[in-house]
Amino acid sequence: MLEFTTTFRIRYSEVDQSGFVYNGHYATYYEVGRAAAIRTMGLSYKEIEERGVVMPLIYQNSRFYSPAFYDDLLTIKVKISEMPKARITFYYEIFNENGKKINTGENALAFIDRETHRPMRAPDWFVEILQREVDKKV
Amino acid sequence: MLEFTTTFRIRYSEVDQSGFVYNGHYATYYEVGRAAAIRTMGLSYKEIEERGVVMPLIYQNSRFYSPAFYDDLLTIKVKISEMPKARITFYYEIFNENGKKINTGENALAFIDRETHRPMRAPDWFVEILQREVDKKV
Amino acid sequence: MLEFTTTFRIRYSEVDQSGFVYNGHYATYYEVGRAAAIRTMGLSYKEIEERGVVMPLIYQNSRFYSPAFYDDLLTIKVKISEMPKARITFYYEIFNENGKKINTGENALAFIDRETHRPMRAPDWFVEILQREVDKKV
Amino acid sequence: MLEFTTTFRIRYSEVDQSGFVYNGHYATYYEVGRAAAIRTMGLSYKEIEERGVVMPLIYQNSRFYSPAFYDDLLTIKVKISEMPKARITFYYEIFNENGKKINTGENALAFIDRETHRPMRAPDWFVEILQREVDKKV
Repeated sequence: MLEFTTTFRIRYSEVDQSGFVYNGHYATYYEVGRAAAIRTMGLSYKEIEERGVVMPLIYQNSRFYSPAFYDDLLTIKVKISEMPKARITFYYEIFNENGKKINTGENALAFIDRETHRPMRAPDWFVEILQREVDKKV
Repeated sequence: MLEFTTTFRIRYSEVDQSGFVYNGHYATYYEVGRAAAIRTMGLSYKEIEERGVVMPLIYQNSRFYSPAFYDDLLTIKVKISEMPKARITFYYEIFNENGKKINTGENALAFIDRETHRPMRAPDWFVEILQREVDKKV
Repeated sequence: MLEFTTTFRIRYSEVDQSGFVYNGHYATYYEVGRAAAIRTMGLSYKEIEERGVVMPLIYQNSRFYSPAFYDDLLTIKVKISEMPKARITFYYEIFNENGKKINTGENALAFIDRETHRPMRAPDWFVEILQREVDKKV
Repeated sequence: MLEFTTTFRIRYSEVDQSGFVYNGHYATYYEVGRAAAIRTMGLSYKEIEERGVVMPLIYQNSRFYSPAFYDDLLTIKVKISEMPKARITFYYEIFNENGKKINTGENALAFIDRETHRPMRAPDWFVEILQREVDKKV
């Protein structure tokens, strides 16, 4: 439905003594890809929070095919395949400079009212921004 | 088959501006639980590497039920349910101070020769240490 | 005037590909030592924030004498040498398991009103807690 | 003598519950600026390590003037003011999008033989690359 691509470079602090990127940092890479995707749509996660919504994770699954190394320039593809209701699901694919797919991930985020900490449905303004982006692709 | 428990306290650096622990740190908590489990068996992950084996992740799945907060003293249970062959699978449950289960996870780690970067089967000495631990429980 | 000691173990995620702890994590170790010191006094940094005060850094200086390694059990000494006014200064010394001093640090934290984001003097209740601790030592 | 500039965006994982960037991440920002500076000179820190040299910190001093926030696009200036001998000293200035200087730092890195872990002088090839860069500026 929607697909976004961004690149980022591996930092020294992200590589552990095995010489491979520490697995916990993939969560951050997903977040970097997701934030860039949202920015491409003319929104930002910062604004989402300013409008009173926080989006914590419900689940996250990752598969590690090949390691990433210091200074690698990686590409992440972020996909959204359906309109959000009580949650939004993202799919991620990370590629190295040779175009090899090294990691895939999937996660779902809830919509939580920042003040009450109660779950809510995806706000209308959020759904509209996604819909406008889908319409552009046609 | 085997179950280990350890506790740890949430650090200020681990909590993001939503006031909840940032999701990427759960990978580190799993690692803290796993390292403590291995230490209980009289081994250490450090020794494993010194014996020429690194153990990168193959996959990792997490479910987030409730947030964790700054200064929380959390308990992590780590389970191993079968003898490792080409990989070892760990199961994790994280509880807060009220005994509420806030997160579950599962991951599988490969055995890689540190020099050749080739996959290998679980070393005999590793399997024996696990077996000895299983025998203790009987 | 006041001195506190706590221990912590180096996590795999904290060691970079040089095999040494990544330098940025020393800031977290200082924070772990500081939080434990405050907890010893019967307070917690969590409570400080709940009372409406945040304490960002003004400066931080570190000296690195020897590296720390994965799985090391380190000891951190935290010292406060004078009563806080507009700021509070902490001194840190980190030792490895052989008792070797591997790192020293110093930082000063401001007192900021959480709502207005304005600097303030150390709250009376904070100074009283410190004074009570000093009196105990006599 | 030499000055380099790069930009980077604040990640969600880098902001703590005070709403400000956690102080420990400034070490990583210095490293990002330093790595970009070295890359501009036609070298990379990765290559430095491949040539058998690791460069751990000797000291690091930071001053925090104003907080940085989630999603801020920051600019870091990195300066080298003299040729390295047993160590190399870097100076950092970080600016926010309004051009306000929010942080300054300084650190010195040693040259350590990767195999022997012994200190060494700055390698000739390293000094030559710096010298070539200085000559360009004239």
